[in-house]
Amino acid sequence: MTQHPAVEAFRGGPDVIRVVGHRGARGLLPENSIIGFEFALKAGAPLLEFDVILSADGVPVITHNHRLHAPTFRAPDGRYITTEPKVAEMTWAELQRYDIGSTDGTSAYGQRFPEQAQLDGIRVPRLRDLLRLIAQPDNSQAYLMLEIKSDPDFAKDQAYRAHLVETVLAELRETGTTRRALLHSFDWGLLAECRRLAPEMPTSFLTQLPSNADDVGEDSAKAISPDFTGKAEQIPEMVAQHGGALWCPYVDDVTPSNVALAKELGLIVAVWTVNDIADIDRMIALQIDAIVTDYPGRVQRRLADQGIRWLGFDDHMAVATQPA
Amino acid sequence: MTQHPAVEAFRGGPDVIRVVGHRGARGLLPENSIIGFEFALKAGAPLLEFDVILSADGVPVITHNHRLHAPTFRAPDGRYITTEPKVAEMTWAELQRYDIGSTDGTSAYGQRFPEQAQLDGIRVPRLRDLLRLIAQPDNSQAYLMLEIKSDPDFAKDQAYRAHLVETVLAELRETGTTRRALLHSFDWGLLAECRRLAPEMPTSFLTQLPSNADDVGEDSAKAISPDFTGKAEQIPEMVAQHGGALWCPYVDDVTPSNVALAKELGLIVAVWTVNDIADIDRMIALQIDAIVTDYPGRVQRRLADQGIRWLGFDDHMAVATQPA
Repeated sequence: MTQHPAVEAFRGGPDVIRVVGHRGARGLLPENSIIGFEFALKAGAPLLEFDVILSADGVPVITHNHRLHAPTFRAPDGRYITTEPKVAEMTWAELQRYDIGSTDGTSAYGQRFPEQAQLDGIRVPRLRDLLRLIAQPDNSQAYLMLEIKSDPDFAKDQAYRAHLVETVLAELRETGTTRRALLHSFDWGLLAECRRLAPEMPTSFLTQLPSNADDVGEDSAKAISPDFTGKAEQIPEMVAQHGGALWCPYVDDVTPSNVALAKELGLIVAVWTVNDIADIDRMIALQIDAIVTDYPGRVQRRLADQGIRWLGFDDHMAVATQPA
Repeated sequence: MTQHPAVEAFRGGPDVIRVVGHRGARGLLPENSIIGFEFALKAGAPLLEFDVILSADGVPVITHNHRLHAPTFRAPDGRYITTEPKVAEMTWAELQRYDIGSTDGTSAYGQRFPEQAQLDGIRVPRLRDLLRLIAQPDNSQAYLMLEIKSDPDFAKDQAYRAHLVETVLAELRETGTTRRALLHSFDWGLLAECRRLAPEMPTSFLTQLPSNADDVGEDSAKAISPDFTGKAEQIPEMVAQHGGALWCPYVDDVTPSNVALAKELGLIVAVWTVNDIADIDRMIALQIDAIVTDYPGRVQRRLADQGIRWLGFDDHMAVATQPA
């Protein structure tokens, strides 16, 4: 059976670990921006992770938090915002008024990314903008880890959830990019909706143990994710039972045994967000398939130093797609 | 008197310190590569420092060392080279056989840049390629700190030295970029040649105390520079006497008193290579004009955190160009 090409693109192998640019290349450029995605594509990290939310007028936009993020959104007066309205309550045109080119260095969030370029005039992109970018011939190696953000406020609104998935799928289909993307979420119900509406597309299951869900300045997944307390070693089994192609655990949640189990079950293991050298080395030792990182160059250097590749390899992909 | 625009582009001021991308953005992308220059231009560091050497067939190429650099040059077989032929003895076509997209992480030089993207298919660019890039309308903010490398083997060959400067000037004139570049060198004799052949262009004087000239894996300037032993405090006076517009000292050589003297003399002070946070903060405290760095985003964040700008400011430039 031939696998979906977006699954193969994330598959590692002997001497191959993939590098996934987290929100583009958050450590170096504004997160979830076209300039960040373009950089990752040019800098040898054509696997892109990013986050999609619907605006009030139904436009899928690329941004992480459900509320405009005060440390990264500047109003037209040039100042970082101090109240955080919901993305879902603003139109696309309203969102375009904010500049996401820089990060407030006085915030706890900003202090996590001291190397990030500080730019002006950068806007929240639409999903469509990124899909058009990867549809260009130069970007034929690009594949997407498309995270559909699940809004806790709509957790029980089945019509809204179906509309969200349908809207994302419509844009993929219109731009001819359904074979270039994984559907990725912390919300397993939403992933079930994806499988119902697009059975031909692979799903990618994000997980984070509640005890580790403490990223400063970011929406937590606790409200919309299954509770994995005490189940760290069972998660791969659960992902496989739900039909996932990828398991995407948080970096502190992986163990030699749960990675081994995931591999036995045929899952691809893509771990986030792997930025520290010690974590990168640990992931290499665990032979995971893909490293999701804010610093693609740092990971490339660490892999290159150990003779590990991250790009191309049609030969490897051909092997990987043969029946076991 | 109106100053040359390339001088004004590097001038700091109250709450303004310029950011200069060293060899593009050496910390993040291959040094002296078009992809590195493009990144710096897009990422808010449109002041570019780089190095020019003549190939055997008289093409000004952009590369740092006089010999092909073993830790960054790969032969067509994909391996890092083990002998280092001279750039000046190879034709442009021969130079194109080497890939400069990655750095050997096992080398002492490679270990200095653990964040650099590791790419394939990147070639030594010509000066002309970069001049064409900055001549594009999108890059109207770009200005060049064009270092003319002085080859010790030709130190006494006046005809060669004149030919080198003439060739560089011809390319600037042909591309209409004479008002976008500083002529920059450690070799004060070569800078005198620049002033003779292009009196309308500003010169920028590089200096490094011999006691600090120990950058691993890089050609030293000792052989072609004046000997500044014991003269750390007199250098600005010497630069001014030689007609320099900029003084560009090594980061460990600047002191509060020599920076103050340079300012009194009307020199612009651009310091290299400023990568460490402690050094960045020291340069901010000294209120130098421009920071030359391998990590433009890191410097931008440090400046932004202290309310200092680095781009634009026609208002400031207008003030700066009024008579004192």
